[in-house]
Amino acid sequence: MIKVVKIGGNVIDNEAALARFVADFAAIEGPKVLVHGGGKLATRLAEKLEIETTMIDGRRVTDAQTLDVVTMVYAGLVNKRIVAGLQAVGCNAIGLSGADGGVICATRRAAKPIDFGFVGDIAVDGVDAHFILSLLECGVVPIFCSIMHDGNSTLLNCNADSVASAVAVALAQRSETELIFCFEKAGVMADIDNPDSVIPNISEQSYKTLLADGVVNKGMIPKIDGAFRALKSGVKLVTIKHSEDLTKDSGTKIEL
Amino acid sequence: MIKVVKIGGNVIDNEAALARFVADFAAIEGPKVLVHGGGKLATRLAEKLEIETTMIDGRRVTDAQTLDVVTMVYAGLVNKRIVAGLQAVGCNAIGLSGADGGVICATRRAAKPIDFGFVGDIAVDGVDAHFILSLLECGVVPIFCSIMHDGNSTLLNCNADSVASAVAVALAQRSETELIFCFEKAGVMADIDNPDSVIPNISEQSYKTLLADGVVNKGMIPKIDGAFRALKSGVKLVTIKHSEDLTKDSGTKIEL
Repeated sequence: MIKVVKIGGNVIDNEAALARFVADFAAIEGPKVLVHGGGKLATRLAEKLEIETTMIDGRRVTDAQTLDVVTMVYAGLVNKRIVAGLQAVGCNAIGLSGADGGVICATRRAAKPIDFGFVGDIAVDGVDAHFILSLLECGVVPIFCSIMHDGNSTLLNCNADSVASAVAVALAQRSETELIFCFEKAGVMADIDNPDSVIPNISEQSYKTLLADGVVNKGMIPKIDGAFRALKSGVKLVTIKHSEDLTKDSGTKIEL
Repeated sequence: MIKVVKIGGNVIDNEAALARFVADFAAIEGPKVLVHGGGKLATRLAEKLEIETTMIDGRRVTDAQTLDVVTMVYAGLVNKRIVAGLQAVGCNAIGLSGADGGVICATRRAAKPIDFGFVGDIAVDGVDAHFILSLLECGVVPIFCSIMHDGNSTLLNCNADSVASAVAVALAQRSETELIFCFEKAGVMADIDNPDSVIPNISEQSYKTLLADGVVNKGMIPKIDGAFRALKSGVKLVTIKHSEDLTKDSGTKIEL
């Protein structure tokens, strides 16, 4: 089973957490792919450069200057730090943007209703699964940042969760694939204030009940909806878990 | 014949020159590799971030903050712009730092006599020629920035000319290789003020005469010395030419 792991900013922003994660990720056996977000580094760099950061619905509005900032931070600093860290523990990582090897092509989002600037979405056929599988077959571990391209030389800032889903769905057409979202909580929780209330399994049926009972936290709904879309497109299993629990059999498993 | 092309800052700093170069590089037939420097973008970013830039003998002193800046600019912004530009004209480029695929390992330079900080040099056996050749055999075109790693998770800033030489020498052990240095002059000139005075060929013998006659400009001496070192290590031909003449049979050809 191929594992596509996505880590978020909470890991990237914390040097000790990142070192631990890198060791855990390296320890995963079998073919694997990592997708990383950018954390607060991009926002901090933009601040220092006096470039205003505008977020709408949790997504960064990306003008030309901001695109340069996220390309520098995500494709440069964060990606190469992770790759060098993995290489040091014997994991043969290779850092990739969507432009590298033309592996993922995105489409610039329409300027209406909201103009997000240089922000892209990945089409169903936008991922070159064959290229990723060739790397995996050679024992190479792809490390994706969320900077893609449109095929016409324009770089585009994409949502890292969406990149992870698109990669997992593309690989799932050829091989059994699990998609793992790592974040700062132990999984989907029945009681947000109780870390012991992790719901171990969610099916389509049980999700309906959880929604009807108002148990699932509002912020989790898009993540779980996205998980079901990935499952319906061929991904075998989606797991939502704490980034410290990567090697543990824990978190919330979502299956159809 | 594999062509290893190095471009410098004069191309990278100029959007129109870079677009032209990208089209010319894409038009080269056969297996090819590009190595790029960083230009003035890194210095300008450091200035904006109020990080002092110190150059000794034309090499950047790289403290931890400066390492972050060059990693962002070289491995992020410049590398991905070039890769996206090449993809748009049908050249299947992949951007690489030394850490990616563990392809080039460097050694941090000793702190004496001058402490350059996070600056590395590439050992003779530091380049994984097999990995580069595998990419070339698949029709993939490696685009190297000059950020390497030491294999122990530390990134190192290297001289792009030296990276190009090291890659060419490593490939030359397996396959005929030409090393091409592109810069802002038409080649090695007999009269620095006369663009028509390009010396078309330099051999070891004629170089001695040129040096004895004081014909070669002082700044060119390290470049030509480096060319002869590469030739003595197996590179077939070293060409020094204008970045606008990439597809032309021009410039100065250096052969043993």
